[in-house]
Amino acid sequence: MITGKNYIGTRQSSKSGITYKTFNPELNTENPWVFHEASSDEIEEAVQLASQAFEGYRNISGKKKSEFLNAIADEMEALGDELLETYMQESGLPRGRAEGERGRTLFQLRSFAELVAEGSWIEASIDTGIPDRKPAPKPDLRKMLIPIGPVVVFGSSNFPFAYSTAGGDTASALAAGCPVIVKSHPMHSGTGELVASAVIKAAQKTGMPDGVFSNLNSSGVEVGAKLVQHPGVKAVGFTGSIKGGRALFDLAAKREEPIPVFAEMGSVNPVVALPSALKEKSDFWAQQYAGSITLGTGQFCTSPGLIIGIKGNNLTEFTQALGEKIMAIDPSCMLHPNIHGAFNNLKEEVSGQPEVNVVAAYEKEVKANYAQQKIITVEGKTFLENSTLHKEVFGPFSVVIQCRDSKELVAIIKKLEGQLTGTILGEEAEIREHGDIVEALQNRVGRIIFNGVPTGVEVCPSMQHGGPYPASTDSRFTAVGIHSIKRWVRPFSYQDWPDALLPGELKNDNPLGISRLVNGEKTRTEL
Amino acid sequence: MITGKNYIGTRQSSKSGITYKTFNPELNTENPWVFHEASSDEIEEAVQLASQAFEGYRNISGKKKSEFLNAIADEMEALGDELLETYMQESGLPRGRAEGERGRTLFQLRSFAELVAEGSWIEASIDTGIPDRKPAPKPDLRKMLIPIGPVVVFGSSNFPFAYSTAGGDTASALAAGCPVIVKSHPMHSGTGELVASAVIKAAQKTGMPDGVFSNLNSSGVEVGAKLVQHPGVKAVGFTGSIKGGRALFDLAAKREEPIPVFAEMGSVNPVVALPSALKEKSDFWAQQYAGSITLGTGQFCTSPGLIIGIKGNNLTEFTQALGEKIMAIDPSCMLHPNIHGAFNNLKEEVSGQPEVNVVAAYEKEVKANYAQQKIITVEGKTFLENSTLHKEVFGPFSVVIQCRDSKELVAIIKKLEGQLTGTILGEEAEIREHGDIVEALQNRVGRIIFNGVPTGVEVCPSMQHGGPYPASTDSRFTAVGIHSIKRWVRPFSYQDWPDALLPGELKNDNPLGISRLVNGEKTRTEL
Repeated sequence: MITGKNYIGTRQSSKSGITYKTFNPELNTENPWVFHEASSDEIEEAVQLASQAFEGYRNISGKKKSEFLNAIADEMEALGDELLETYMQESGLPRGRAEGERGRTLFQLRSFAELVAEGSWIEASIDTGIPDRKPAPKPDLRKMLIPIGPVVVFGSSNFPFAYSTAGGDTASALAAGCPVIVKSHPMHSGTGELVASAVIKAAQKTGMPDGVFSNLNSSGVEVGAKLVQHPGVKAVGFTGSIKGGRALFDLAAKREEPIPVFAEMGSVNPVVALPSALKEKSDFWAQQYAGSITLGTGQFCTSPGLIIGIKGNNLTEFTQALGEKIMAIDPSCMLHPNIHGAFNNLKEEVSGQPEVNVVAAYEKEVKANYAQQKIITVEGKTFLENSTLHKEVFGPFSVVIQCRDSKELVAIIKKLEGQLTGTILGEEAEIREHGDIVEALQNRVGRIIFNGVPTGVEVCPSMQHGGPYPASTDSRFTAVGIHSIKRWVRPFSYQDWPDALLPGELKNDNPLGISRLVNGEKTRTEL
Repeated sequence: MITGKNYIGTRQSSKSGITYKTFNPELNTENPWVFHEASSDEIEEAVQLASQAFEGYRNISGKKKSEFLNAIADEMEALGDELLETYMQESGLPRGRAEGERGRTLFQLRSFAELVAEGSWIEASIDTGIPDRKPAPKPDLRKMLIPIGPVVVFGSSNFPFAYSTAGGDTASALAAGCPVIVKSHPMHSGTGELVASAVIKAAQKTGMPDGVFSNLNSSGVEVGAKLVQHPGVKAVGFTGSIKGGRALFDLAAKREEPIPVFAEMGSVNPVVALPSALKEKSDFWAQQYAGSITLGTGQFCTSPGLIIGIKGNNLTEFTQALGEKIMAIDPSCMLHPNIHGAFNNLKEEVSGQPEVNVVAAYEKEVKANYAQQKIITVEGKTFLENSTLHKEVFGPFSVVIQCRDSKELVAIIKKLEGQLTGTILGEEAEIREHGDIVEALQNRVGRIIFNGVPTGVEVCPSMQHGGPYPASTDSRFTAVGIHSIKRWVRPFSYQDWPDALLPGELKNDNPLGISRLVNGEKTRTEL
């Protein structure tokens, strides 16, 4: 049952008197639940409780943390239809998507459970001492990763499960040993509360300290800003817009003690269509991209917003085919009237620039909050000279750029901001010829795709989800996959520490049986 | 030969018309060489050249980078006495220290050479595709670490070799595949130029692209500020004061594209003396600490500035013994009159606080720029209430805090800012009793030492040199050891990329024979 209250650890609280509601974009009406915005007192309580919880939680064994993470997945699953229906009511996304995203979220939680149960992820490193070394003895040094402290997580509008309350940021932070305070997303606070209740139940069932998780409601920016500025908060995870992510990054950088912010933000995900791709498989790629551009109503961070080719009949034919195929796709609902409104405004702003040609624009009447897809095309020169054309239009919209030659194509890639992904369509031999294109693209992105579409982010260790700014605020980390845990940990060394007092990870007899770097060699054997 | 010019890659340049000299603190006179401050044009040229060099250097093999790094060490060694003498003339440090620090610097360079020649450090991860997976095919994903781009390095005053021109930051950045621009330290620009000449020679001999290394002179803050704000610069390494590091961090955070700054800054390195240590080994520890506090004239980032004990006869005896032993040590020269002046001012400011008792103060006349050591003592309550007493006094100075009880001791540790190190003196059984002290200390530091002194930073994989702010600007990284390379790299994924076009690190047949994570298992075998 949705109460609309905040979770301060296990306790539900509604002190502020300020309320808001979520919206059902499919029915174009408000949802029934009333959410209580977190007050300053509640923020303070949640951070205090998280700081206290950290003292215990940071030392809890990997096995216990694993039980907790698996229990979150189980409790989330146990919410069954109520959870799926709330998700659909607050996002306008269809049931199949809700089920798929829930599956992904459970998989993420269970992957982290497996990672911390095994234990080698803490990168244990041991250099044994040499007491009689000259001129000075060599001390015994042992290093491992330890949690950084309480983490604040800002969920995204477009992934109410996988990048929100118990999504990737929360799962990785809890796995690392950091308590989490979620700033609930105002568009799906009901979904958020249900998931939060699952996390709280799991924490209680597995004996976690109170305060290991809190969930605070907020419809504005105040609660988030206060959390990021609170001295008790030690890191921030964010998924959303450049404007939102940058604002939090700036607040965190101005603190007396600056803290790391990993914000995964905007991306237009350029696609380079080499001549061969458009000659041999023009129709195939037009079909694939019509699907990729409209997938999830274009509301993915990896949605392809730019397709770059070299001017000529093949590109013209591809562009026309793309236009025809995208017009055949039925429009679908966006997440929220605000997102729908922003889509329409930005789509018109970009389309209204000089020297823009419209390839396809769905203009038939649609239901409220449904997105009308659009494809435009511009010359390379025009794109280079007008930065408005570089803007991310969040929704089913894409720009086809017609370059004079491959030199102009490289110049365009070099001028792009940082991106999550870059894609190349073509033949192997052709890529070899265009090494400069691949090089330029590699410098601007976190992941490069050959003959595919950028949508669909596989959750696996080899996935990089992040990239040069503004794709993310720190390209040295990923938001997806087990390595995303590295955002919330710091190395810590013990020098000449008595074996009996060392954590299990670093003891001589390796009681946890983890893989360790011992005097430069990877091994699972004892010392 | 020292020319006083800047190195813009291989080219020497002196355009600004603004000059400065370095100072010999031992002789209390200026050194003869005239250094030319880098002009705006020269800064622009160096960054442009570094950006161009990056296009080639980022793809150079580990073997070739290894040759380059080893050649730097060889060329540095070949500079022989001229280099050692310049170091001594510009730092006032004795010959033994110069030789020791050179040895450490060569070791660092050669360690990184070994690391990149072997190659596994790039953390290759391969998840092979499953084309017939339902509901969607699983793509082939392969990830590795790639260099982030040109890095600007700010050397430290107190390590003219090991944390300056070709020191840890430069060696790790070059190893990562990042070109380096050094902002030469104004106190040892001659030493810096000689080392720079060694790097340039090594780059030429091993065929590195011009611009892989530049060295810019500057006596003020302008050159550094311009470098950090230049869009072509992608990361910053800094070793020095909190004021300097924070100023650069703030500039980097305010850029249109924020970039990572790893600044290793201040630390007072608290030492907790448990009752047993002072009962059984009071004299021994007094001797050890008199030595540690005055080592290198107290000019180490790990110098112990705070000793915390519980009030009583044992602590009083230890404090007296420490005072006596430190008075018996001959004063030594500081790095520069400015550092000497700052030491005297801060020492007097802290000593002049109310309720401070002087334990020992060397007051005999000393040579110019020689430091007069001092030990003061205060009650725990006084320390808690007066944050001036928390200040780092860079030089041979330490505060002994007398706590009422262990509760007050824990309260003091919790109130400290972030530190590089924390030390505990005592017996194993006693530490078990005082788990709260260890816990509190662990939360504030990057390295914890048992029955030792914090000075002496072993260069090995298990060393953590960094810590919660302000010990460093990002506690998730280290400035010392092979893992310091992680500051300058970002993960990058290839999706469904043709094997023939993948870098060697990720090809099916593992031509480099490196260790890789393949479908979750660490292995060196081919696919």
